[in-house]
Amino acid sequence: MSHRLTVVGIGPGRADWCTPEVTAILAAATDLVGYAPYLATVPESCRARRHASDNRVEAERAELALDLASGGGDVVVVSSGDPGVFAMASAVLERLDEHPDRWRDVGVSVSPGITAAQALASRVGAPLGHDFCVISLSDVLKPWSVIERRLDAAASADFVIALYNPRSRHRPHQFADAITIVGRHRDPLTPVVVGRHVGRDEEVVTVTDIAHIDFDAIDMSTIIIIGSSTTCVLDRPTACRVYTPRTYVDPRTARG
Amino acid sequence: MSHRLTVVGIGPGRADWCTPEVTAILAAATDLVGYAPYLATVPESCRARRHASDNRVEAERAELALDLASGGGDVVVVSSGDPGVFAMASAVLERLDEHPDRWRDVGVSVSPGITAAQALASRVGAPLGHDFCVISLSDVLKPWSVIERRLDAAASADFVIALYNPRSRHRPHQFADAITIVGRHRDPLTPVVVGRHVGRDEEVVTVTDIAHIDFDAIDMSTIIIIGSSTTCVLDRPTACRVYTPRTYVDPRTARG
Repeated sequence: MSHRLTVVGIGPGRADWCTPEVTAILAAATDLVGYAPYLATVPESCRARRHASDNRVEAERAELALDLASGGGDVVVVSSGDPGVFAMASAVLERLDEHPDRWRDVGVSVSPGITAAQALASRVGAPLGHDFCVISLSDVLKPWSVIERRLDAAASADFVIALYNPRSRHRPHQFADAITIVGRHRDPLTPVVVGRHVGRDEEVVTVTDIAHIDFDAIDMSTIIIIGSSTTCVLDRPTACRVYTPRTYVDPRTARG
Repeated sequence: MSHRLTVVGIGPGRADWCTPEVTAILAAATDLVGYAPYLATVPESCRARRHASDNRVEAERAELALDLASGGGDVVVVSSGDPGVFAMASAVLERLDEHPDRWRDVGVSVSPGITAAQALASRVGAPLGHDFCVISLSDVLKPWSVIERRLDAAASADFVIALYNPRSRHRPHQFADAITIVGRHRDPLTPVVVGRHVGRDEEVVTVTDIAHIDFDAIDMSTIIIIGSSTTCVLDRPTACRVYTPRTYVDPRTARG
């Protein structure tokens, strides 16, 4: 009997950003476990039993999936983006780690997907073309002081910075605080790319700069990419393009 | 007449990690431009003219692609991984930026792909499950001092760190120097994942720690992921799994 659990990423929303590997894994599954809106994107031709859950119940979802796999069958946990980036793969492995013997017969594997940050970057060009950091601003599972320390370190070393989970109703001021920290190390005209619902019909992508971010337009469906000192904006006839060059000239040396 | 240039990422090697969007773009192309081994992975059913080039001629390759697009046709530049991460999308936009009027009629777009770091992460679980940095160790286009500063900042703020282009014949000692910098901030037993030719037939993935990295096994086909202080290794019956939990407990607080 199979005791297999695969955590897959369907990408940021567009069907043609989901890898053929993930499509094949979904087609062979006996059970799908995931947040309801992600399961809804899996084609009806996939005949697996569907176990939809609410948001913010990652641990319970992981436990259900491990139990189903332990009972036999090919169980697939469906994440958006890449399941290994702020998503369900860690949640499943955390649960296994807490109870190493309970699901000893279950083999867990992961199939990668396009992340929201990559998708947003591709929409405007190549802002992640050079060294970059990816940071979640959610302080539900980590102290805000750690987030501040990481923002400061990333900004001081002139990384391009991609921000996930930028702002929720419970912490409306933190995104502005994060921008203040980064702004201590960057020119106010540093390019900023803001993407909402990237890869979905309602997608909105804006190119702005640190001094002109519209804080009210930022919510949990938004991803932000803040350029480094070398990130450029090209005003093209067809579309504005943003990129970070492969060549790095230290701004401190260039100024001196 | 079409004047279109699309930069696509075919992923790290496996055909089923290439997105359907990229497959469709390749099928509709009139001209393919790219490093010869990447073009060789495009199916023969794709009838476009192929313009294969050597490695390390990104600027010439970008210029050729822009000229072909300017002459009409649907030109596709083929990158491995994601074209926006240390790859051809920045090279094309750099070239456009140098000669803004020369290719004024060419519209440039980018289609994302699975990166080598994501692919390696998926092979072992979810080491990139929490805040992470991606750094290229190549000092061909940036000063080594900038790389040192970024490694130090990323390690001091306890990011998981993915390293690209770790070691070439021209700079055999730099990878060891990089590990020394990170090691100043990390326990010697911090998990390290080493992947060579990830996604290809000759793939080799190893889980080790900072104190036990086999430097001789590292070359330019290798990607390295160095865990944060919270990254765990789970020794499972089927395979060793590595993950970084979503919950962050500051090791300095925990020790105190």
